[in-house]
Amino acid sequence: MKESILEYLKENDDKYISGEYLSNIFNVSRAAIWKVMKRLEGEGYIIESKTKVGYKLISLPDTLHPYEIKSSLDTKRIGKTIHYFEEISSTNDYAKKLAQNAFEDGEVIIAGTQKSGRGRFSREWISPPNKGIYISLLLKPQISFENITQLTLFTALAICNALEEYVGINLEIKWPNDILLNSKKICGILTEISGEVDKINHVIIGFGINVNFDKVDFDDTLKNKATSLKIETSKTQDRKKIIQHILTVFDKYYEDYLNGENFENILKQYKSKMTIIEKNIVISIHNNTPASGTVIDITNSGALKIKMSDGSVKEFLSGEISLNPILD
Amino acid sequence: MKESILEYLKENDDKYISGEYLSNIFNVSRAAIWKVMKRLEGEGYIIESKTKVGYKLISLPDTLHPYEIKSSLDTKRIGKTIHYFEEISSTNDYAKKLAQNAFEDGEVIIAGTQKSGRGRFSREWISPPNKGIYISLLLKPQISFENITQLTLFTALAICNALEEYVGINLEIKWPNDILLNSKKICGILTEISGEVDKINHVIIGFGINVNFDKVDFDDTLKNKATSLKIETSKTQDRKKIIQHILTVFDKYYEDYLNGENFENILKQYKSKMTIIEKNIVISIHNNTPASGTVIDITNSGALKIKMSDGSVKEFLSGEISLNPILD
Repeated sequence: MKESILEYLKENDDKYISGEYLSNIFNVSRAAIWKVMKRLEGEGYIIESKTKVGYKLISLPDTLHPYEIKSSLDTKRIGKTIHYFEEISSTNDYAKKLAQNAFEDGEVIIAGTQKSGRGRFSREWISPPNKGIYISLLLKPQISFENITQLTLFTALAICNALEEYVGINLEIKWPNDILLNSKKICGILTEISGEVDKINHVIIGFGINVNFDKVDFDDTLKNKATSLKIETSKTQDRKKIIQHILTVFDKYYEDYLNGENFENILKQYKSKMTIIEKNIVISIHNNTPASGTVIDITNSGALKIKMSDGSVKEFLSGEISLNPILD
Repeated sequence: MKESILEYLKENDDKYISGEYLSNIFNVSRAAIWKVMKRLEGEGYIIESKTKVGYKLISLPDTLHPYEIKSSLDTKRIGKTIHYFEEISSTNDYAKKLAQNAFEDGEVIIAGTQKSGRGRFSREWISPPNKGIYISLLLKPQISFENITQLTLFTALAICNALEEYVGINLEIKWPNDILLNSKKICGILTEISGEVDKINHVIIGFGINVNFDKVDFDDTLKNKATSLKIETSKTQDRKKIIQHILTVFDKYYEDYLNGENFENILKQYKSKMTIIEKNIVISIHNNTPASGTVIDITNSGALKIKMSDGSVKEFLSGEISLNPILD
């Protein structure tokens, strides 16, 4: 009932609605209506209440309650179920727990803050409360392991396109899936996979977006490498709307992908946003000696094609890139 | 102490050893020696005990106690820790639980029988008590996802070579990793993987070998497709020795692989055992329409190279093969 009353208040936020009227249309006591208002206030909704006049919704909380996200979400598969936590260890870890039992393709886990947010290579991902987007998608795509890289590429592109469109900015992608604004990181993606050689059991795509971080939220090591939408646009951004936008774009790409749509168009868009094409880079893979070369292209399976310093051409499906102009 | 006394009995199984003598060399009471003998008998060891003469080990049980396996295991990494269960749901499932916490690369899980043994595509794997080998290796190789197929191929080859050498038979491999004896299946391998796109957290390689199965152990649907070493060689085989042999060969291949040894030699051996080269087959992948063609080769990354019926050449990294002579 709470959600229906909230929807009603939203639709009528230009006027006061009396408690009596509400109790009539929702067929509950006026005391029950009063309780709902108190609960909504507890969740951060500002509701004005005037004696003998009624209730009026003044503003929504800056939290990511599932019913707020779902209320205007136009997706086929993604976000039909949303799990929300004010605080959690990490959304990917919770998704892993969910994956141990039956789950729907496209369940979403959202956190207000993460106590042990992680990025790639087990690095910490800072998650100040209610300033960022900390979210995981739990998927079970019927694809092969060899296509996982494609999935990670179009995830980066979906987030990138959704942010550009909604916030009105230009972003760059650093292969495989860091998203940069003015050459600083604003989004990282961590994809975890479990399955047999032939069969994927689940894919968890977690991403963190620095939305309303202030400069003080970054420590000294991050200050020069990371930024937020708020810092760069000088404007507090609406995290709910951004999430809705991203889920909608991702949902479309995901449907197309599962329906076998050609990957070429995605790849073309992806390339146009890539920062490192034709640049000299150093690539590190596991514990091997880092290799340097010039990025030529990415292949249809998402591998980075590099002309090595010895002239040979190699392909890398994973690894860590650093831009490193070769001086000799 | 039990294991040391057992070792001593094994080394001296040509004579009787008095309880007094044992109590002296192991520095325990004669009552303690007597208790150890009773425990060993409970585990299936046959120990003859003559009043005033002593104990003599007559025979070992046909079970796979870790200390029996480890006693003459010459490996660097595989089987330093062995977990044994008379009965378990499935060795792969137990390995998955182990993988949730810290573990060593190369832990081994062995079962006397499995209540829910699984093969590829979630099919049942029958596990009659103490007649087969039901085993999982828990690994954390520092390799990329794209190399997992190579790992599965050399696992099949390691098992194949160890069995051929120890049992004195000729085996065939049906890509990617079924092992056949006289065109019937005697071993299946199920590889499960978990990790990030860049980083493998764990690989579980489970395999089941039909060692001393009798014909009645196969139901009607399996009778024509599966067989056992005992059925084909008319001889009861020693499961312990077979396990030791396989772990030793696998350990060597695994070390070589992690040390970056060229995969070509493995691939060459693998190909020489392949049943389907130059045969017409049907390959099914996930829910797609099965495709038919002629097998040309396997690639360096372990993919099957097929000349399709329309003349094009395609590569498949996974899928289910059925031999299907095309009649037109």
